[in-house]
Amino acid sequence: MSGSLNIARGDRRRLVVVGGDAAGMSAATQARRLAPDLEIVVLEAGPYISYAACGISLLVDGSLSEPALLTALTPQSARASRNIDVRSGHRVQALDVRARTVAGVVTETGEGFELEYDRLVVATGARPVKPPLPGVDLPGVFTVRSLQDGVELRAELDARRPGRAVVAGAGFVGIDLAQALRARSLAVTLVKDSATPLLGLEPELSAVAEESLVRHGCLLLRDAPVYGIDAGPDSRVSGVRAGGEQLDADLVVLAVGVRPCADLADQAGLRLGPGGAIGVNHQGKTSESRVYAAGDCATQIHRVTGKPAYVTQALAANRQGRVAGANAALDLMGAAGQPLTRPAHPGTLGTAVLKVFDAEVGRTGLDLAAARDADFDAVVTVITARTQPGYYPVGGPMKVALIAERRTGRLLGAQVAGHPGAAKRIDTLATALHAGLDLATLADIDLGYAPAFSPVRDPILIAARSALKRI
Amino acid sequence: MSGSLNIARGDRRRLVVVGGDAAGMSAATQARRLAPDLEIVVLEAGPYISYAACGISLLVDGSLSEPALLTALTPQSARASRNIDVRSGHRVQALDVRARTVAGVVTETGEGFELEYDRLVVATGARPVKPPLPGVDLPGVFTVRSLQDGVELRAELDARRPGRAVVAGAGFVGIDLAQALRARSLAVTLVKDSATPLLGLEPELSAVAEESLVRHGCLLLRDAPVYGIDAGPDSRVSGVRAGGEQLDADLVVLAVGVRPCADLADQAGLRLGPGGAIGVNHQGKTSESRVYAAGDCATQIHRVTGKPAYVTQALAANRQGRVAGANAALDLMGAAGQPLTRPAHPGTLGTAVLKVFDAEVGRTGLDLAAARDADFDAVVTVITARTQPGYYPVGGPMKVALIAERRTGRLLGAQVAGHPGAAKRIDTLATALHAGLDLATLADIDLGYAPAFSPVRDPILIAARSALKRI
Repeated sequence: MSGSLNIARGDRRRLVVVGGDAAGMSAATQARRLAPDLEIVVLEAGPYISYAACGISLLVDGSLSEPALLTALTPQSARASRNIDVRSGHRVQALDVRARTVAGVVTETGEGFELEYDRLVVATGARPVKPPLPGVDLPGVFTVRSLQDGVELRAELDARRPGRAVVAGAGFVGIDLAQALRARSLAVTLVKDSATPLLGLEPELSAVAEESLVRHGCLLLRDAPVYGIDAGPDSRVSGVRAGGEQLDADLVVLAVGVRPCADLADQAGLRLGPGGAIGVNHQGKTSESRVYAAGDCATQIHRVTGKPAYVTQALAANRQGRVAGANAALDLMGAAGQPLTRPAHPGTLGTAVLKVFDAEVGRTGLDLAAARDADFDAVVTVITARTQPGYYPVGGPMKVALIAERRTGRLLGAQVAGHPGAAKRIDTLATALHAGLDLATLADIDLGYAPAFSPVRDPILIAARSALKRI
Repeated sequence: MSGSLNIARGDRRRLVVVGGDAAGMSAATQARRLAPDLEIVVLEAGPYISYAACGISLLVDGSLSEPALLTALTPQSARASRNIDVRSGHRVQALDVRARTVAGVVTETGEGFELEYDRLVVATGARPVKPPLPGVDLPGVFTVRSLQDGVELRAELDARRPGRAVVAGAGFVGIDLAQALRARSLAVTLVKDSATPLLGLEPELSAVAEESLVRHGCLLLRDAPVYGIDAGPDSRVSGVRAGGEQLDADLVVLAVGVRPCADLADQAGLRLGPGGAIGVNHQGKTSESRVYAAGDCATQIHRVTGKPAYVTQALAANRQGRVAGANAALDLMGAAGQPLTRPAHPGTLGTAVLKVFDAEVGRTGLDLAAARDADFDAVVTVITARTQPGYYPVGGPMKVALIAERRTGRLLGAQVAGHPGAAKRIDTLATALHAGLDLATLADIDLGYAPAFSPVRDPILIAARSALKRI
C-alpha cells in the first residue's frame, strides 16, 4: 500500500475528506472558507462529485440530456475556484486512526496510494441494499444511487428499449423512478414487501399516493416480498417472483433502501449508531477525536426526540458536511479566529417531499409509530381540505395529518398529501416543529390567504384546530 | 325610531351583531356554539352575508357565474343551521350605549327599527375611500368592496362592454381588479399616486409585480395622483386626469384604500385607534364594556410591535369575530362553563399574498419603513434564487426580502416575489415570525427538498444565510 502516490504531510496541515458528494464537498468548501492555508484533499471513488442525486430520475426520464447538468462542480472547477485538491477515481480502502492515514487504490490504474491527515472527514455516503436473492446480479437488474448508476440505467433504456419494468421497493426512490420509467413508456409494476402504507404516511395520505400511481398506469403490488429474479434464454433478466406473483420484466430496479457506507469506519474501530451509521455528535465528531463524519454514512440527531437516528437527506448532508468541515478546520487553526461556540448541526426533522405524478406528498418529524416508539403519548388527526377555495377554478383536495402529544399539544410530526400545492406546505409545519410550537399556537398563525393560493383558513390551520379538539 | 319593529329583550339574553360578513357571522356562530340558549340577532345592511370578498374579482372576470358561489351562508341557512336570526337589509344608524340599543331602518320598506342588546358586537367592516374629486359620482365610476359592488361592476361589463378602464390605486384590490378587467379584454391603465414601490414591497420585489403587470398589457402610471374624472357628452365617464396625463376611459375603478366604518361607534363615544378604527384589545373589547368590535372596522394588535394597528384581512376578521363573539357570549353565561382564560386574538402579522398574472407576491410582518418607525434598528436583505433547481424543467426566479433587527438577528418581516410557487412560501416566514425566531434559527430549519419543489436549499434558507452575513 506504499508507492509513488504515498504522500506524507509537508509543512501545511492537511484535511482529508473521503467522499466528494454533498457532505464531502460541503465539508471541504467550508474548511477552505475558514482556513485559506489548509491543504485540503478530497478522495472520491467515482467519476462525479457534488451532484444532485435527487435529480437522477430526470436523467432517466430524458428531461435532462446529460449528467453534467446535475453536477455543481467538477474536480477541475473545485481545484480552480476553491483551491481544493479533488481526486476522483480514488477509492479509499483502509483507515488507520493511530497512524492517521487513509490508503486505497486509483481505480483507473490500479495503483495504490496512502495519505496522512491531520483531520479526516468521512463522507462515504450510503449504498443501495442489494438483497441476497437469486438473480440480483443478472444483466438488466439495477440499483440507482449514484449519478453513474443513473447514467447506466439511462444507457440501458436507450440501447435496449425494455418494455416491462419491475421496481422493487415503493419508497421515495422507487416511486420517483417508477415515474421516470412510465415517462419512457414502460409498463411499470411497483412491488412492496409489506402491506403498510407508503412512505411512512398515515393510511389516508398513503392512499393519495397510491391512487395517483394507479391512475398513471403503475401497478402496485403490496405485501409481496421479492424472493427471486429469473433469467431468460439470453441470460438476462426475464421476470421477478414476488408474493404469489410471477411478473414478466426485462428491467428490474431494486429500490429497497440504503445502508450507510461505514465499513471503513467500522474496521477502524469508530463507534457506530442507529442503522449501522457512523455515530457523530452535533459537531460532526466521531468517537475518534481527529475524525469527523457527515452525510448519509453518519447518524443525525433527530430534533424531536433529541436522539441519534439514521436519516438520509441531501440538505442534512450538506449541513452536516459544512459543520464537520468547519470544526475540522477550526481544530487546525490557532486560537485567533476561533468562534465563541463551535458550529453545530441543529438536528434533523426528516422533512421530505415527493411528486407522485400529479399528486404531492410531504412529511416532517415523527410519524405516529415513531412517536409512540419514542414514548410520546401521541395522537394523530387527519383532515381533508382544499388547496384553494372550492369556487376557485384551480385546486383540489389535500389531506393534512398532525401527530401531537396528547398532554401538552406539542406538535411531533406532520404529513401532507394531495393536489399540486400540497407538498411545500410541509415547510410551514417543519418550521412550527423546529420552533417547538404546540397545536394552539399553530392554529393562530397568520398564514397567507388569497383564493389563488388557499382557502381563507389554510388546510394547516384547519388541521391544527381539528387536532386541538381531539386532545 | 320606534314602531312595530321595536323589539325589547324578553327573558333570554340577547347578543346583537351589527354586520353579517366575515367578522360578524364568525362572532354570531361562535357565540351560538358556546351559548345554545342565547338570542342572537345579526343586522346586515346589504343583501349578502358571509361572503368571500377576496373572490369578487372572479365574479368580475367571469370565472364565476353568480354571486351565490361566493357566499358561505344565506340569512335563511344561518337561521336554519345555526339558529342565528340574521336580518339582511337592516341598516343600523344609531347606537346608544347607555340605553343599550341600536336603531336603524329596513332598507326595502323604509321602516325604522330599534333593538335592545345585552352585548353588542360591532362588525361594520370598511368602505372604499372615495376621494373628493370632480366626477367621482359619474356613471361608470366604481368602487369594489362588497359583493354587491362586484355584481354591479360585472353587470356594467356585460351590458356596456367598456373598452378602456382606468384603475386608480395599485394596491392589492387595484392589481386584482386590473387582472379581472384584462381577462375581459379591456385596455387597463393602473394609476398610482406616488412613486413608491407597489404593495409596500422592497423595490426589487415590487419590480417583479410591475414587470408582470406590464408584460400582461397593463399600463402602469406612477407618481400620477388623480385630480379629476371627466364626463363625455352622454354624461358618463369619459376620462381621467392623473399626473400630467389625460387618460381616455369608459370605466373607472377607484381602489385607493379603505376606511373603517366606525362612525356609529365614534358617535356613541367609543374610543378610536390607528386609522380611525374602533380600538379593541386582544379579547375584542372596545372602550365600552358591553360592546365588542371585530374585523375591518376595528384595530388589531400587531404581533411584531405589540401595538395597535389598522390592517384589513379576511382571516384576521374571522378570528377577531370568533374571539369577540366568544367573549360576548361568555359574559352572558353563568360561572359554570367559563374557561380558565378568556379567548384572545394572537395578533396579526399582516400576511398577504397576491397573484399578479403569472407572478406571485407575498409579505408578512413589518416592512423596512414600518420596522424603523417602530424604532427597530432594522436591516433588509434581498436575495434572488429559484423556485426549483435550474436543471428542473419547471420553475423560475424568485426573490426573498428579510427584514431583521441588527443587534439580535430577530426576524421582523419578510417578503417574497417571483415565479409560481413563490407566494405561499411566505407561510414559512410567517410561522418563523409568529414563533419569534432569529435568522440563525431560520437558516437551520429542515425545509422540504425535491427538484419538483425546491432547490436543495430553499430560497428562504438562502435568504436567511445571506441576511446572517449582513448583521
